[in-house]
Amino acid sequence: MTTTEVNDSMRNGVDTATLFATLDAVKQAPQAASFQFRAHNEWLSGTHNRSTISDFFGVGEERAHERTFTFDADHPAVLVGQDHGPTPVEFVLHALAACLTAGLANIAAARKVKLTEVRSTVSGDIDLNGILGLDPEVRNGYQQITVRFTIKGDAPAERLRELVEQSRARSAVYDVITNGVPVTVEVDTP
Amino acid sequence: MTTTEVNDSMRNGVDTATLFATLDAVKQAPQAASFQFRAHNEWLSGTHNRSTISDFFGVGEERAHERTFTFDADHPAVLVGQDHGPTPVEFVLHALAACLTAGLANIAAARKVKLTEVRSTVSGDIDLNGILGLDPEVRNGYQQITVRFTIKGDAPAERLRELVEQSRARSAVYDVITNGVPVTVEVDTP
Repeated sequence: MTTTEVNDSMRNGVDTATLFATLDAVKQAPQAASFQFRAHNEWLSGTHNRSTISDFFGVGEERAHERTFTFDADHPAVLVGQDHGPTPVEFVLHALAACLTAGLANIAAARKVKLTEVRSTVSGDIDLNGILGLDPEVRNGYQQITVRFTIKGDAPAERLRELVEQSRARSAVYDVITNGVPVTVEVDTP
Repeated sequence: MTTTEVNDSMRNGVDTATLFATLDAVKQAPQAASFQFRAHNEWLSGTHNRSTISDFFGVGEERAHERTFTFDADHPAVLVGQDHGPTPVEFVLHALAACLTAGLANIAAARKVKLTEVRSTVSGDIDLNGILGLDPEVRNGYQQITVRFTIKGDAPAERLRELVEQSRARSAVYDVITNGVPVTVEVDTP
């Protein structure tokens, strides 16, 4: 019986028992849901720089990932860089794909849908006349972003589409990208 | 003389001669600045998924980075994941730091300021009552993001601050995050 119960709570690699317990815990103590995430970046040379991601605050205390994650960003040669990493704007597309996909897996698990494949391509169109300062009518950022999902699972197509719609409706990165966030920039020049 | 000229065109690891040549080339052919960036994502298990970044379109043709970059995203245990990578929202912070820093190095080079150190911490405050669906008054994404730069170089503090301000004013990721971008989500269920 225990095995059956454990198996039943694990779906799509999501521990739904823990997921629902976490929801209940936050309902009882809403302030536990106040998180602060951080990235620490160091310039290396030219357009090449490196972020480390480790510490964050959540559930009332300072925490750390199990290991420190390190990511390089750069420009390709055609954009006068050395191609030591993706461009910063490509990381935005990865963040969006990752957020929608993680949410999808959680929501499918909660709705007892077994997923067998989830793939997506996120593409962003940008006119660099904006950041190059050559055309004041052109914005700096993406003009539009398109996400294309391919999803397979043990539910009808309409049900699978509803999972994506719910994930979109609850995605942190989708909200950030479509609605914007106030950003403050502070500079220390010691 | 040649050596002197080459050295003079390289500043902060930025090849300013190529940078200005690129600007001139785009002035002559503005359509060369139409780029499309992409991330391809595959769900692995639970909140764990993986993006590959390689192909993009720019300067009139399909291109690829010198190698394929691969990034895992996940949730930490406290958010019911396995911590195989940063959360999607942390990649957004990395993208912002990387974009502002790359622009800063280019702008400093163009203005003949030699940078010796650029570090930043980007922090984002988020109330997970939003994505957990527990409080309809709380948004899904970050409520605010703060970027703190520490910059050293051979220019007065005021000049260094102006570099950051110009980088902010020309940053693709800053624009995306502060102003938002329309996102279309399409689903194929074969």
